[in-house]
Amino acid sequence: MGEAWRLTATEARAAMASGRLTPVALMESCLARIAEREAEVRAFAWIEPERALAAARRADPSLPLGGLPIGVKDVIDTEDYPTQHGSPIWAGNRPRGDAAAVAWARAAGAVVAGKTVTTEFATRFPGPTRNPANLAHTPGGSSSGSAAAVADGMVPLAFGTQTAGSIIRPAAYCGIVGYKPSFGLISRIGMKIMSDSLDTVGCLARSVADVALFAGTLSGRDLGSPDVSPGRAPRIGLCRSPAWPAALPETVALMERAATALARAGASVRDQELPARFAALAEAHPVVMNVESARAIGWELTTQRPLVSTELRERLEPALALPVEAYDRALAIMRDCIAGFPEATEGLDVLVTPSAPGEAPEGIGWTGDPVFNALWTALRVPCVTVPAGFGSKGLPLGIQIVGRMGEDRAVLAWARWVQSALA
Amino acid sequence: MGEAWRLTATEARAAMASGRLTPVALMESCLARIAEREAEVRAFAWIEPERALAAARRADPSLPLGGLPIGVKDVIDTEDYPTQHGSPIWAGNRPRGDAAAVAWARAAGAVVAGKTVTTEFATRFPGPTRNPANLAHTPGGSSSGSAAAVADGMVPLAFGTQTAGSIIRPAAYCGIVGYKPSFGLISRIGMKIMSDSLDTVGCLARSVADVALFAGTLSGRDLGSPDVSPGRAPRIGLCRSPAWPAALPETVALMERAATALARAGASVRDQELPARFAALAEAHPVVMNVESARAIGWELTTQRPLVSTELRERLEPALALPVEAYDRALAIMRDCIAGFPEATEGLDVLVTPSAPGEAPEGIGWTGDPVFNALWTALRVPCVTVPAGFGSKGLPLGIQIVGRMGEDRAVLAWARWVQSALA
Repeated sequence: MGEAWRLTATEARAAMASGRLTPVALMESCLARIAEREAEVRAFAWIEPERALAAARRADPSLPLGGLPIGVKDVIDTEDYPTQHGSPIWAGNRPRGDAAAVAWARAAGAVVAGKTVTTEFATRFPGPTRNPANLAHTPGGSSSGSAAAVADGMVPLAFGTQTAGSIIRPAAYCGIVGYKPSFGLISRIGMKIMSDSLDTVGCLARSVADVALFAGTLSGRDLGSPDVSPGRAPRIGLCRSPAWPAALPETVALMERAATALARAGASVRDQELPARFAALAEAHPVVMNVESARAIGWELTTQRPLVSTELRERLEPALALPVEAYDRALAIMRDCIAGFPEATEGLDVLVTPSAPGEAPEGIGWTGDPVFNALWTALRVPCVTVPAGFGSKGLPLGIQIVGRMGEDRAVLAWARWVQSALA
Repeated sequence: MGEAWRLTATEARAAMASGRLTPVALMESCLARIAEREAEVRAFAWIEPERALAAARRADPSLPLGGLPIGVKDVIDTEDYPTQHGSPIWAGNRPRGDAAAVAWARAAGAVVAGKTVTTEFATRFPGPTRNPANLAHTPGGSSSGSAAAVADGMVPLAFGTQTAGSIIRPAAYCGIVGYKPSFGLISRIGMKIMSDSLDTVGCLARSVADVALFAGTLSGRDLGSPDVSPGRAPRIGLCRSPAWPAALPETVALMERAATALARAGASVRDQELPARFAALAEAHPVVMNVESARAIGWELTTQRPLVSTELRERLEPALALPVEAYDRALAIMRDCIAGFPEATEGLDVLVTPSAPGEAPEGIGWTGDPVFNALWTALRVPCVTVPAGFGSKGLPLGIQIVGRMGEDRAVLAWARWVQSALA
């Protein structure tokens, strides 16, 4: 097979099942792609081609993820590669063991191709990664390297994590599929947890079937198959959300186009905003995130302070000074909205809402605004972004499909439906 | 000061404030106590007296925990001591950084005296620790070393963690105070999390004031002072709980004695059982705990299986084979009961309920039954055990004070009240 790196994970699995492809050939193709592109894209925090090839030689292609190269975001522990959290404080850090999700991925046959770049502790201070669609633009963050590597064909699958918008936004900016599961679906043991109430492990790939395969295998769940059609059209709530003032013209146009295309494809589509009290999540989310993150990096802040970026210190140190009542109030708002979300979406299969304000911003100094993501992360609900055309600068756009907690399988199926309807 | 090791943390702080005691003298006294007793008690997984003394020399006694020696349960990362999780798989493991709670304790002046023995991954397979009250008996688990070290005067304060009954039970068995805070009160970043939905960091000490000081400092909360009286008597629900059939005669007698003593001290006391549906937690808790724990130690189970104890494998591997629906159902039961607990305890300040079936079992092969604890851990509510006399074998008994989520300060205050009433 020429150019095996172009295959999605499910395509590669089919090719291996029919004997047209081997784990080694696939890894060689991905490594060649990395060798060709990495100097410009800078998706990887650590890569050892010989180690990756040796692991591919041992891979059993009959397993669910057999022989599939994966990228592991560098806030997730690996026993054979350093785990550096995008911070000089953790340079060269060698954990003894794999994070649970990595271990289960390997046990299912996946082969780690390398560690992908994360922003500092999966927060905002960016790494060196560029958007493969246009190297002058950010890939988004914090799962910057995972999004760029998958988009550029370096690996078919990668781990991401999300506290505000760290999976959905970079996936949308890079033109791929990103999936933030229901809170807790994939074990996060062995990742560098910052916000215990928000942090969620998820994944990035080039098709919805791929994220369903990857996350389903990791969580021991059947998250659906690309071959099974839902058998009916969905009831969709078009949700501009309280973040709508941040929507750029390309997103305004996309939402209008989506309304027409989804209805034309047979969906029942209605405008659906959230109850007014959900607007409070916009302020509650950063309080929960920053207070928990500040306490979580207590060791770094109290013993290695000069090596924490000024940006992060300026965001977290004020959070330490907040009265605990502010944190308790923010958590109570979160709990109330989580409890109220099923009622707020009654009669709908999913919400369709922007994945990001618009195309990826220019430059790599800022990874973009998670304003269209924080709400859903705080609600702990499953979110999928699928590619949805391009903006006026020729950069990819994504559109986000959101469902109720625990309804991941349905959300993934409707995400595929939405992607087809918009194609 | 002679025998400074006998002081509680708050007493030691007062002695340091008045200049009668220094951090070094306190640490020397504790280290002497350890040297005298450790060969029999076996509370520590790792100890380096010179390192502890050097840290005491640097301690600033004016800080909130200034100069107080602490024991750190060996499932919690420390940058200067190995963190071995009670498992040969992690022998000699050296994390780069402190867990967040340890970092905040040190930043507040606490001095780590050593790592305390945990059962294997804070589950059931026991360590070598013995109960200081009677060396032929277990100290309970999984915070075995922390409970024994505090009870025996080796340190005034220690960290514990609880997934079922791992703080409250060993504290009761050893005759000290144990405090499992509301879920999430103390950051657990950097501990070996097994059950993401249950694991809670807490502490053990020889007075309620001490656990309030320690946990309050770590969480940035004012959890109350020993000098402030509540100013009224509490409304107490005496809760035998669904675990009552497991109560041994000494616990039946204790609950009767408590009813009388609490009423005599002025409390309004009524029998209060939980609504019938809460009985389902007895089955839901182990499902959540075992499924999450099995997935959490994916690396150990898939790459180091022979080094996982047979006991643990036999408990966790069947959990991996459970249908995910069973796990989802168990989590839903937990959520429903958590939401219903405030209503179930309306009109009451706290529940008073057994801490353990009875005195510590004989032998160190079994750390005892968490049957009187799992319910409250699943409800995520604050629990405090205080010493409550002795059983017929002369071993300590504890009694447990339980309140609503987030009402930690009140629960601690009423725990002190209950302890005085029973004295």
